[in-house]
Amino acid sequence: MKRLDTTQPGFATGFDALLSSARDTTQRVDGAVAAIIAEVRARGDAALLELTARFDRWTPAGAAALRVSAEEIAAARQACRPELLDALDLAARRIERFHAAQMPQDLVLPEDGLTLGLRWGAVDAAGLYVPGGKAAYPSSVLMNAIPARVAGVERVVMVVPTPDGEVAPLVLAAAERAGVTEIWRVGGAQAVAALAWGTDSIMPVDKIVGPGNAYVAEAKRQVFGRVGIDSIAGPSEVVVLADAVQDPARVAMDLLAQAEHDEAAQSILITDSAALADRVAEAVEAALRTLPREAIARASWEAHGAILLVRDWDEGVRLCDRLAPEHLEVLVAEPEAIFARIRHAGAAFLGEWCPEAVGDYVAGPNHVLPTGRTARFASGLSVFDFLKRTTWVSATEAGLHRVGPAAVTLAEAEGLGAHARSIAMRLGQ
Amino acid sequence: MKRLDTTQPGFATGFDALLSSARDTTQRVDGAVAAIIAEVRARGDAALLELTARFDRWTPAGAAALRVSAEEIAAARQACRPELLDALDLAARRIERFHAAQMPQDLVLPEDGLTLGLRWGAVDAAGLYVPGGKAAYPSSVLMNAIPARVAGVERVVMVVPTPDGEVAPLVLAAAERAGVTEIWRVGGAQAVAALAWGTDSIMPVDKIVGPGNAYVAEAKRQVFGRVGIDSIAGPSEVVVLADAVQDPARVAMDLLAQAEHDEAAQSILITDSAALADRVAEAVEAALRTLPREAIARASWEAHGAILLVRDWDEGVRLCDRLAPEHLEVLVAEPEAIFARIRHAGAAFLGEWCPEAVGDYVAGPNHVLPTGRTARFASGLSVFDFLKRTTWVSATEAGLHRVGPAAVTLAEAEGLGAHARSIAMRLGQ
Repeated sequence: MKRLDTTQPGFATGFDALLSSARDTTQRVDGAVAAIIAEVRARGDAALLELTARFDRWTPAGAAALRVSAEEIAAARQACRPELLDALDLAARRIERFHAAQMPQDLVLPEDGLTLGLRWGAVDAAGLYVPGGKAAYPSSVLMNAIPARVAGVERVVMVVPTPDGEVAPLVLAAAERAGVTEIWRVGGAQAVAALAWGTDSIMPVDKIVGPGNAYVAEAKRQVFGRVGIDSIAGPSEVVVLADAVQDPARVAMDLLAQAEHDEAAQSILITDSAALADRVAEAVEAALRTLPREAIARASWEAHGAILLVRDWDEGVRLCDRLAPEHLEVLVAEPEAIFARIRHAGAAFLGEWCPEAVGDYVAGPNHVLPTGRTARFASGLSVFDFLKRTTWVSATEAGLHRVGPAAVTLAEAEGLGAHARSIAMRLGQ
Repeated sequence: MKRLDTTQPGFATGFDALLSSARDTTQRVDGAVAAIIAEVRARGDAALLELTARFDRWTPAGAAALRVSAEEIAAARQACRPELLDALDLAARRIERFHAAQMPQDLVLPEDGLTLGLRWGAVDAAGLYVPGGKAAYPSSVLMNAIPARVAGVERVVMVVPTPDGEVAPLVLAAAERAGVTEIWRVGGAQAVAALAWGTDSIMPVDKIVGPGNAYVAEAKRQVFGRVGIDSIAGPSEVVVLADAVQDPARVAMDLLAQAEHDEAAQSILITDSAALADRVAEAVEAALRTLPREAIARASWEAHGAILLVRDWDEGVRLCDRLAPEHLEVLVAEPEAIFARIRHAGAAFLGEWCPEAVGDYVAGPNHVLPTGRTARFASGLSVFDFLKRTTWVSATEAGLHRVGPAAVTLAEAEGLGAHARSIAMRLGQ
């Protein structure tokens, strides 16, 4: 953990190091991924079956066996504790409600002789990559699939690797609850290739979302353009702004909730109280020893954690905006007022009763968020990721006479003769 | 030009060939671009000066000389014909109005004990790449810069190469009218690198938009992640749906207005009238001979043009959706009804008084649009490209008691102990 104080010399250097520290240690796998994509494009289902046998250590009976059946989904649901299904349902309902509220309105701007419009529409089909094994989080299935369904996507196709043929029942239950329409037992770059290019069994989709390992991320990069993709997520991070009166144990646990995700995760406390800084540092040490994922959380905190002591919240707000964190907790006397001054963050949690973990599961906003300072220009997953716009114009003859001459003038200035003629000939010129 | 008839054998094969024809002949320049970006990152302004001398054939007196001064902009404006400035102003006003109407509202969803919100905000700074020389279109300056300004971006930084030190006065006038706040005489991959990483003279931006050559496109790809980028545009295209009563000469000119952009552009007529198909084919030949850009338009039409004869508009609509064209003209009896059935297009122009060229200049919607069938999932440039969302949640103690237990259940099921504890300890558990 790095501790920095804005009143000390060397702060700027230390903060710049924090900003530019590369936490992402993604391997270079572009050649391997390009070969896998080429295989799937050339040989379709046969390639999927071979790659599944090789990487996931089970041999599907045929391409049809890659699809998870309705009976298997029903059985998975039966295998889940009712308490878990209830929690999943509460989360799903809240996520649905928040995302439904985001749905934008079409625009129609009638004016004299011309009408302008903007129409929103959903993509036809979306693919959702779900990591297999231990990284298969049912909450992420909800967060990725529900915005697609709320946006109006008809086909929501989930792919999930099933190492040794196994898949977590709660993941299938979450997929069913979220409205996923097809589930395929295939993962890695081969699954992304199948979603982008299609095979005899799996119809192609238009947009691919969801987290994955280095191969999956690289495959998404390589199929981008053929299909849309969501952003490529880096390691997760949180900035907690906390004043002197906050409970150090709670602040510490909030920092560690981020750190336990991944050794490359980053947790930063910004405080105007040296006493709180001390107490949180101690509380982190105490809490670490109680955690099931102590080793991961400790590695993250030691390598990437930071406590920044600021003179006041003007300074705190400025530093926070430079960090543009994925997650932001505002634990100060008037959190709304401080949040109003912060321009860049993926998702904010205001006040002492709103730890970030609430947002990971049940609050309603999405937990797929921009990492690595990209909140300066990027946003969390939403219905907008599954919608696209078509603008339209209609005109009467009088309308064309009103605006056409200016267009002819500009087209001629740009040397585009057919552009100019296509208008001028309708104006009788 | 390829002519296909849905009633003839071989239609499906011919149409698939049309769909999959690769018109984009971008060179591979990734190595050269990576070297230029590394130079600019390492040596900043000095690298910009050297690269400008090498590629643009003029030697700036120093980094300050790269910036276009207010006096130069005023002089450029003086050098433009008043008629052109008036046309530019009419276009700008209409583009501003349409984009202002797109601005989304913030969301606040109060509920018992929890409040959920979504706040829109602009990026701090946007970079706009404008090609130099003959490809410098003032209309594109308006289309790229106005959405940024309307979205609320404070710094809009234009970069434009000035081969032999020259820049079109109307391009500078358009930049001024559109609200560009800085103009730099630098182009190529080096300009993109400067916008993404900053130099002593040019402060970095958060988002880079605008068209460019293969080097510029590759540079945008390489800086993506560090900054946001707009989509990488391919060659332009139009689909015209036209019925028997349309004027063949007008339809032909509309097709050629697309073809004259670029040898790789594509113009496709879909009609239910064999007679119109014949007459348009003849009219294209006649019109080609009258065009200043005949050679380009002819090359495009011969290599990529197509006329598709359909049985009815059910078929026409289906084919159109598979093409998902950048531009769509609907020249049929009830254009609104046909347009309502089409799901995928970048921008539509409805009825005989609305040729696509109106949209290129003065209608109001953006002319930066998704090419190469990406309208299936992508949209034209808009204020949304310069906005990002921050979601937020606030809670009372009672609110946390209402939703917290479900979050604890899910966090425990996912094995994330600190997540569960951060909530449970606030619930007094």
